[in-house]
Amino acid sequence: MKKIVLLRHGQSLWNLENKFTGWTDVPLTQQGINEARHAGALLKEQGFNFEKAYTSYLCRAVNTLNYVLEELNQEWIPVEKSWRLNEKHYGALQGLNKQETSAKYGEKQVQLWRRAYLFAPPPLPKQDPRLPYFDLRYQNVPTPYLPDTESLKDCVERVLPFWQERIFPALETHSTLLVVAHGNTLRAIIKHIKKINDEKIMELNLPTGVPFVMEFNGLLELSKDYFLGN
Amino acid sequence: MKKIVLLRHGQSLWNLENKFTGWTDVPLTQQGINEARHAGALLKEQGFNFEKAYTSYLCRAVNTLNYVLEELNQEWIPVEKSWRLNEKHYGALQGLNKQETSAKYGEKQVQLWRRAYLFAPPPLPKQDPRLPYFDLRYQNVPTPYLPDTESLKDCVERVLPFWQERIFPALETHSTLLVVAHGNTLRAIIKHIKKINDEKIMELNLPTGVPFVMEFNGLLELSKDYFLGN
Repeated sequence: MKKIVLLRHGQSLWNLENKFTGWTDVPLTQQGINEARHAGALLKEQGFNFEKAYTSYLCRAVNTLNYVLEELNQEWIPVEKSWRLNEKHYGALQGLNKQETSAKYGEKQVQLWRRAYLFAPPPLPKQDPRLPYFDLRYQNVPTPYLPDTESLKDCVERVLPFWQERIFPALETHSTLLVVAHGNTLRAIIKHIKKINDEKIMELNLPTGVPFVMEFNGLLELSKDYFLGN
Repeated sequence: MKKIVLLRHGQSLWNLENKFTGWTDVPLTQQGINEARHAGALLKEQGFNFEKAYTSYLCRAVNTLNYVLEELNQEWIPVEKSWRLNEKHYGALQGLNKQETSAKYGEKQVQLWRRAYLFAPPPLPKQDPRLPYFDLRYQNVPTPYLPDTESLKDCVERVLPFWQERIFPALETHSTLLVVAHGNTLRAIIKHIKKINDEKIMELNLPTGVPFVMEFNGLLELSKDYFLGN
């Protein structure tokens, strides 16, 4: 039996401050670090031996993974990072407080940006220094691939090439993989694997720091999925 | 100008307890974590932007690297880990207190094991559960490559293929690389690069947590080397 464990990063500073984060590189809070360590301890207790791990370019995910591997004493395993696992890009909403945004644009509009599959927030303005184009870490990514905002649909289409080319095929030679990423990129993966439709997927909320285990049979079909712990 | 920075991991628990460590996977102490963070802050202050990092399979090195990258907010860069960057294997001395070992075998013998280029400590006994052969993390390494003890010469010969095949050629496409490893593996690299002879190399002691910068000219010849900070 093969396994892929999905894990959403622990609480970040902007989760705590209730701000739209997206691609902004915000660190974990102490609670976020504790959540990461707890997830690692849970995985250790259940005897998980990971052979490879995947994460995004954002430090809240990378550091969550680091704490998990430290708890497991599996720091030595190879880790592959990709911008394709970054959180959904939140465009011009990044950095804004969620409540203030609701007050300004109306609750209904904000819900569309947050929860409707096809709706993307307003893009970052051209020449905005926060555009990924200006960030050193994305210099090897073809410019047309770099978002200035994203709907969940855009995010799904950006994540899947990495899932299909890098993560899933690794099951051919490995039996236990770990993916530490973000609410929307993990949603994208689960939508794909479980064939969930565009509306239903919006109802799926992954809690931070709780490992979601997917088991695959010999034909690499999903045979079972569940959260570890409560 | 191209740069490779070498960094020895911060203080580990067995550094503190004055025990021979070698391939034993011993965690950092709080002081070791502080040394790692300090090195990261120093590199940040000097404006280092690393494009790739290399480390061993041992958690004291991996975690030192993680803390450095966290201080730099460069967690996103690719990290390549290799057993070839592990510390010199200390054979049957691993786990023994250095003073007790001197009392038992004599100061002179222990100095030979620690400081003579060609002398290896007594090997781990056959079937010893601490042999790398029995450790999951080395299962993809050809068995004849796995040591039961090492002289510094053995260690140099084990490190160089990774340096020559993976690290040094990366300067062709990258300009700033970071290697976080161990006292003897870094000695091996410096011996090779600076063409230091077998006796002289034994006098070189790298302090923990102090970045050693090597600068290379356009022909990839070493043009300058120095420690950062004091």
